[in-house]
Amino acid sequence: MSADWFRRRFLPRGQLPAPRPPRPRTSPVPYRRPRFLRGSGSSSGTADASRRPDARPVRSPVRGRSLPWNAGYAEIINAEKSEFNEDQAACGKLCIRRCEFGVEEDQEWQTLCSEEFLTGHYWALFDGHGGPAAAILAANTLHSCLRRQLEAVVEGMVATQPPMHLSGCCVCPSDPQFVEEKGIRTEDLVIGALESAFQECDEVIGRELEASGQVGGCTALVAVSLKGKLYVANAGDSRAILVRRDEVRPLSSEFTPETERQRIQQLAFIYPELLAGEFTRLEFPRRLKGDDLGQKVLFRDHHMSGWSYKCVEKSDLKYPLIHGQGRQARLLGTLAVSRGLGDHQLRVLDTNIQLKPFLLSVPQVTVLNMDQLEPQEEDVVVMATDGLWDVLSNEQVARLVRSFLLGNREDPHRFSELAKMLIRSTQGTDDSPIQEGQVSYDDVSVFVIPLHHQGQGHSSR
Amino acid sequence: MSADWFRRRFLPRGQLPAPRPPRPRTSPVPYRRPRFLRGSGSSSGTADASRRPDARPVRSPVRGRSLPWNAGYAEIINAEKSEFNEDQAACGKLCIRRCEFGVEEDQEWQTLCSEEFLTGHYWALFDGHGGPAAAILAANTLHSCLRRQLEAVVEGMVATQPPMHLSGCCVCPSDPQFVEEKGIRTEDLVIGALESAFQECDEVIGRELEASGQVGGCTALVAVSLKGKLYVANAGDSRAILVRRDEVRPLSSEFTPETERQRIQQLAFIYPELLAGEFTRLEFPRRLKGDDLGQKVLFRDHHMSGWSYKCVEKSDLKYPLIHGQGRQARLLGTLAVSRGLGDHQLRVLDTNIQLKPFLLSVPQVTVLNMDQLEPQEEDVVVMATDGLWDVLSNEQVARLVRSFLLGNREDPHRFSELAKMLIRSTQGTDDSPIQEGQVSYDDVSVFVIPLHHQGQGHSSR
Repeated sequence: MSADWFRRRFLPRGQLPAPRPPRPRTSPVPYRRPRFLRGSGSSSGTADASRRPDARPVRSPVRGRSLPWNAGYAEIINAEKSEFNEDQAACGKLCIRRCEFGVEEDQEWQTLCSEEFLTGHYWALFDGHGGPAAAILAANTLHSCLRRQLEAVVEGMVATQPPMHLSGCCVCPSDPQFVEEKGIRTEDLVIGALESAFQECDEVIGRELEASGQVGGCTALVAVSLKGKLYVANAGDSRAILVRRDEVRPLSSEFTPETERQRIQQLAFIYPELLAGEFTRLEFPRRLKGDDLGQKVLFRDHHMSGWSYKCVEKSDLKYPLIHGQGRQARLLGTLAVSRGLGDHQLRVLDTNIQLKPFLLSVPQVTVLNMDQLEPQEEDVVVMATDGLWDVLSNEQVARLVRSFLLGNREDPHRFSELAKMLIRSTQGTDDSPIQEGQVSYDDVSVFVIPLHHQGQGHSSR
Repeated sequence: MSADWFRRRFLPRGQLPAPRPPRPRTSPVPYRRPRFLRGSGSSSGTADASRRPDARPVRSPVRGRSLPWNAGYAEIINAEKSEFNEDQAACGKLCIRRCEFGVEEDQEWQTLCSEEFLTGHYWALFDGHGGPAAAILAANTLHSCLRRQLEAVVEGMVATQPPMHLSGCCVCPSDPQFVEEKGIRTEDLVIGALESAFQECDEVIGRELEASGQVGGCTALVAVSLKGKLYVANAGDSRAILVRRDEVRPLSSEFTPETERQRIQQLAFIYPELLAGEFTRLEFPRRLKGDDLGQKVLFRDHHMSGWSYKCVEKSDLKYPLIHGQGRQARLLGTLAVSRGLGDHQLRVLDTNIQLKPFLLSVPQVTVLNMDQLEPQEEDVVVMATDGLWDVLSNEQVARLVRSFLLGNREDPHRFSELAKMLIRSTQGTDDSPIQEGQVSYDDVSVFVIPLHHQGQGHSSR
């Protein structure tokens, strides 16, 4: 992606073009639930018909079907907010093949050996909006993008430290020293591969949605285990936390119009034409109105962490680029997240103003060193879409996790049972820890990944 | 500042204009040392002629001259790197006047009472480059800018929570609720005032340097005490730390081409014309050369935290936008800091490529709540320019501070003595904790601010 590309794509000279009506060339992306839920239809026994007649069913994999690391999973559809469950999930083994370097071949690449070389595991949650298509495409695609990106750098992951040249041959005798001084580690290649995979997947989704005449976007939260480390990549407002006996550690942070205010305001400062004269980039405590004209009111611009006062002018009365606070904050009055995949065609209602230039597909990646962690019996990672975190805090989830696992040591399906219990806790049932009125009406999807016995003896060949 | 202004200033159409030769209209900014050092000339007894004949003198205020909070100060000039000491310092009482609102006056502002309303204290260090002028101007000016910015919002600082309107009158009955929901506190107004003051000061320096035909820039590290809180604002590579008996807490972070890589690369991505085809925005472990062409080498772009490999093209052989690592990292081969004041005319040697568009004058501000801290006898804040931190770690400084204060409880000038001792520790004397060869040849300036008895009973009228 280049700056020229950005300008051509988002800053056409003269009038903004009307959005092209999508002309479907391929059939629509078919709706489906995650593959690993097969056999657990909502009419089957594994869907939890719960204790209340009006309750929505909680679904999880059929007993006997095991997910990577014996992880647990459960999901619930929203309370008729949309026809489909817009959350999606994927998990599986990640097989990285090695493309060996043919030394004789004049430094060209050759696939001499395409056997599995490195194996890891992959769990992913996608929370769709504007339709289920983007999340389904992401669940079908992102792991392949990641595999491809990892295979492109796998030679660099073999050495203790990534070599300056992928061939491993030093052009300059002090190459290893330069890499050492920059502090570049194997895990930086995995982080780079995750960053590239999210971007590649975003491009695939853009092409596929255009081809099928569909729209929509999704957040993406991914956990990947590789060579003794667990990588958590997040673009959106889902969340992953580590729960141990004495510790609750966030493994991701949320990307919303509120948390990314300065980045978004700065883009509007650099390219004011993106707002087409319809929005103000400034933040005020509330939307201003005629009575405020000429008054000095609290405001913040892109370069400010603090607040100051400014004299209200007419242009300040426009609708704010970011409006509302907390979970209610919206970008251009439209979107509650600032990172994710898709949304290539999304425009502000009844205008040509595009959302996409303000959205990032690149995730933030955190790394958990499993060898250093020495995971204990009840240590787990909980990954869930925002529907769970809207009503339960990290600490509340941790308490539920600890007490459930303590009382269910023998059940081989206890991690899926735990995922189901967490979802039921958001539904306002009698034994729920949440307060009256704090019920999740959103789609909720939860992975519980046990860490015990996973740190040691990771296979690297 | 608007985006249009940025484009007019930095992105002229067609050929880049040659830098205007400065035409002095005013006399040059005269060189001087901080006012509070008067009477402590290097020939006087307070300049520490040290134990070695070749040692440079360490200067500190004359005994009997007390700085705010009985703070200590010391400085040393560099080892003939430049003719002048390019560090500067300032400190004093900060008197904020109140401009009372004339209710009868049809909602206009009137100064009914210009008496001192709020008092605070101010300590500042400036580390100049390209000449001493910018740092001297900053030392002469920044506190006035800050006072002006604080006076502009002081009415908002009176209430428990800043009002939506500076007049205090609600236009909308739920105004307090909006401010409450946004979590806007009094300290956010001080942070906003510090941010605005740095920017205002940068503009003043730009005008003054142009008028006097001088050049240069400086970093700025400021501590301000106000209403029971200590604010530390930093733009550059100086550093402030809190040292307590059981704790060492950083109160600032450094802004260098290395720590601000992504911001700087992103600007070059958005405005490639800023590099005039002479630099590559990509980061590589070392500068590439002809032999690397066609090879796959490690690289990072603006959107990446991790590393990946790319096939080297001819344009990758250009000089990197950010080159070198750690203390050696340079922006456009020229500057070691990425935030600060001044440098309005700075260009890459023998080109018209400007540094200023890549520099921020806005500081990062951290807040220390003195009431919550309950400072003990030996709790201090140490502020120093990079010359100190180049050779001493936070932990080493903390150990020196603790052992010195423990052994010098009675001396009323012990904080200046401590500042002098810290500077001597960077000069490679026998009892210095630094290793052989790790000696600071840079200018070094140090404030030591004692916190005991400062949290309680702060005056607010």
